[in-house]
Amino acid sequence: MLVVGELINSSRKKIAKAVREKDADYISKIARDQADAGASYIDVNAGIFEDDEPACLTWLVEVVQQAIDLPCCIDSPNPKAIEAALKVHKGTPLLNSISLEKDRFDAVLPFVKGTDNKIIALAIGEDGMPTSADDRIANARRLVGHLKENGVPLDNIHVDLLAEPISSNSRVGTFFLEALNAVTAEFPEVHTICGASNVSYGLPKRKLMNQVFVVMGVAMGLDSCIANPLDRKLMANLVAAETLAGRDEFCERYLNAYRDGLFSN
Amino acid sequence: MLVVGELINSSRKKIAKAVREKDADYISKIARDQADAGASYIDVNAGIFEDDEPACLTWLVEVVQQAIDLPCCIDSPNPKAIEAALKVHKGTPLLNSISLEKDRFDAVLPFVKGTDNKIIALAIGEDGMPTSADDRIANARRLVGHLKENGVPLDNIHVDLLAEPISSNSRVGTFFLEALNAVTAEFPEVHTICGASNVSYGLPKRKLMNQVFVVMGVAMGLDSCIANPLDRKLMANLVAAETLAGRDEFCERYLNAYRDGLFSN
Repeated sequence: MLVVGELINSSRKKIAKAVREKDADYISKIARDQADAGASYIDVNAGIFEDDEPACLTWLVEVVQQAIDLPCCIDSPNPKAIEAALKVHKGTPLLNSISLEKDRFDAVLPFVKGTDNKIIALAIGEDGMPTSADDRIANARRLVGHLKENGVPLDNIHVDLLAEPISSNSRVGTFFLEALNAVTAEFPEVHTICGASNVSYGLPKRKLMNQVFVVMGVAMGLDSCIANPLDRKLMANLVAAETLAGRDEFCERYLNAYRDGLFSN
Repeated sequence: MLVVGELINSSRKKIAKAVREKDADYISKIARDQADAGASYIDVNAGIFEDDEPACLTWLVEVVQQAIDLPCCIDSPNPKAIEAALKVHKGTPLLNSISLEKDRFDAVLPFVKGTDNKIIALAIGEDGMPTSADDRIANARRLVGHLKENGVPLDNIHVDLLAEPISSNSRVGTFFLEALNAVTAEFPEVHTICGASNVSYGLPKRKLMNQVFVVMGVAMGLDSCIANPLDRKLMANLVAAETLAGRDEFCERYLNAYRDGLFSN
């Protein structure tokens, strides 16, 4: 399971403050903590800074990659910010994200086409959010098709089938899971991803919901997620779920995680 | 989610001792604890007592149903024991279990045919355990067909697709889950069930595995399980999973479980 550490996001007050004050120590610590906890990418988001987003995002990439040896998930739809961040980024980043919305597709495609960069492909349609499982499947199919036509290898695409708050509509969980079941069957080479914490918005005990949701995703073939890797219970659940999903021969990773103390809390 | 409380099983030493000593207080307490924790049926198993099984199973049913107002899951392949237990059982029991094995099918069918009794239908073939997802699906299809031919309503059948220890073969989890996905799609009226603790046999932190496995099952449509309802984390996971699976309008049961303190540990 590929976990994108979600914590360095300027929508969080402490992160916004650290970016504003150029507090590299704080950002470095959050990056290291997430890397130590098993993150494969560190999400960096400076979306609240508007005109300063390119400079702030660039600073975040530099600070994170001075602290740890991991690629970033460059979390911006702004071509100027993406371009600036890519100039300093070392290794192969994951871009967050492209969709079928024409402006967004045209703005982000140049940073993927003809590169090795990985891309999160949101199953949002030309005219906005899907409202069913079938919508999500159709959007994913069209978006994967467009990326493929532009030479993007399927293995570089992480389709996000849009987990939405279950508090707003009791069916959105099934929309996501049914779409995931269909997309993983139709495109075995494409990766799938979700923002694990979206489903729990507006409910108490959000961590429980997130911990359970990612497990349901793994049952349907989910192989990456944007989540808080410092949530040990979530990481433990992911290890157990992958073992039960047949992705852990001889239960080796499960037994290693047990020996490393991941299951002790 | 229908949870069959698994604790009153004579393969557990304390239960065997209580049955041997006719310690009704102990059995009553275990029954009450499971009922209070949310069990829908109380499994009763006196399999280790061999010739005395009919008398012991009857005693268990009587003690349990004097303590609480729930039906039992009568857990025996022995027609004498089933017959004796049914004579004293109040309400509609769940019988555990029938399979395609000819002796077992012929022995158990009379206790289901022409009755309202519910039945667990194990996807074991005429010649033994299945070794793939397809085997499980084929066995389930044949067994549901035979039960239907004998007038058993589909709604009374709980198909068990045989969770086996993941420590013995890393693929058995996917065999179970793929079969579950297929069977719930093909037979929407049939219920599905699993012994939640089988998967974790031979591994450390078995509870974690069981807690994660039932969640994966719910993602695939599982609607009942044989489990330990005193495992609060498992019960909390089931509530969250059902909410995410679209079985909990307005998150009502999730919010009630939160208010009742189920998520506090």
